Amino acid sequence: MKIITISREFGSGGRELGKRLSDTLGIPCYDRKIIEAIAERYGYSEDYISHISEKEIEVMYPSTIGQSFAGYNYIMQPAMEIMSAQQKIIKELAGQSDCIVIGRCADIILKDLHPLNLFIYADIKSRLARCINRTSQKEHLTDREMAQKIKQIDKERAAYRKIFTDNQWGNIKSYHLCVDTSDREIKKLIPGLSMYTKCWFDAELSGN
Amino acid sequence: MKIITISREFGSGGRELGKRLSDTLGIPCYDRKIIEAIAERYGYSEDYISHISEKEIEVMYPSTIGQSFAGYNYIMQPAMEIMSAQQKIIKELAGQSDCIVIGRCADIILKDLHPLNLFIYADIKSRLARCINRTSQKEHLTDREMAQKIKQIDKERAAYRKIFTDNQWGNIKSYHLCVDTSDREIKKLIPGLSMYTKCWFDAELSGN
Repeated sequence: MKIITISREFGSGGRELGKRLSDTLGIPCYDRKIIEAIAERYGYSEDYISHISEKEIEVMYPSTIGQSFAGYNYIMQPAMEIMSAQQKIIKELAGQSDCIVIGRCADIILKDLHPLNLFIYADIKSRLARCINRTSQKEHLTDREMAQKIKQIDKERAAYRKIFTDNQWGNIKSYHLCVDTSDREIKKLIPGLSMYTKCWFDAELSGN
Repeated sequence: MKIITISREFGSGGRELGKRLSDTLGIPCYDRKIIEAIAERYGYSEDYISHISEKEIEVMYPSTIGQSFAGYNYIMQPAMEIMSAQQKIIKELAGQSDCIVIGRCADIILKDLHPLNLFIYADIKSRLARCINRTSQKEHLTDREMAQKIKQIDKERAAYRKIFTDNQWGNIKSYHLCVDTSDREIKKLIPGLSMYTKCWFDAELSGN
């Protein structure tokens, strides 16, 4: 079973990289499909699930809702249900065939399947350029606002990871291969990356 | 000009990886040759240069020698000369042709040549196994002693790096590709890595 997980900084092109790698390797890439599966099975809206699915509990729980037990339950019960559904669905999908899973702490959730865990990152200049390129006209942010958004989303991803593990988000030791996409065209990195993933699975020393 | 630098944790197999990559890419790999060149040009012994060449000044300067100006000069003058010679020789070698340079903060020294900077690391179990395998019978260390030696050498490398840059040793953001060699046969990773290095140089976005 060859499972690849992709953790990534916001704006680093991790999702694009995952999708291109999946095309080249001929294996499915799970990202949005996880959200669709939760929506279908549990009846939440996809937008609501997207909002929850990579954030830490504290981030999900707005201070404006007050500290009442009822308010807490109102927010937390569906959040917990979505987190638990997400884990279940990731395990189900990964159990079906070789695949790539993007984000959602899949590296930790699928640990027993010995995945190859990638981390994709880039300098702030490249991430800003990538984010501004893909942002719709409607959501016009200044460079400064976009940099703040990038920082905030990374913070939420790091916090979400803490629910699952002590292994730090973005720390070298939490991954098997860390790829800097600064000033690089992702498409052109794929032949090397796909070859490396094949090598990595074949290179395992016997006795481990 | 295609320059690859390799920074590495002690025992991660970074040197072996560099040499194999150099064979596959057909470009020279500079490691011991840097020391030989300094020895030849400046007349120090190779052992003495090895001792100095990746250690921070404070590590080189034993407290037992006292705080006298004469004692300080006795240790520091050749140390500074070797450090400066090392930088000069690394720049000379890298100026001659595409190459791989192992250690010695070559990523910082050669920054203007836009090298591909790799960091090689592994979990402590794999590093212990690798170190014990290559240690001669004469230098018999227990696992605990070897683990201490690994920790000490990494500490010296991190401290040496601080002389040159604020970019931290072993921090993802200081490198372009970070490769975990835990439980992996280095030889089998090389086809993927050599392909990746080629892709990386070709993938540069225009305008950078």
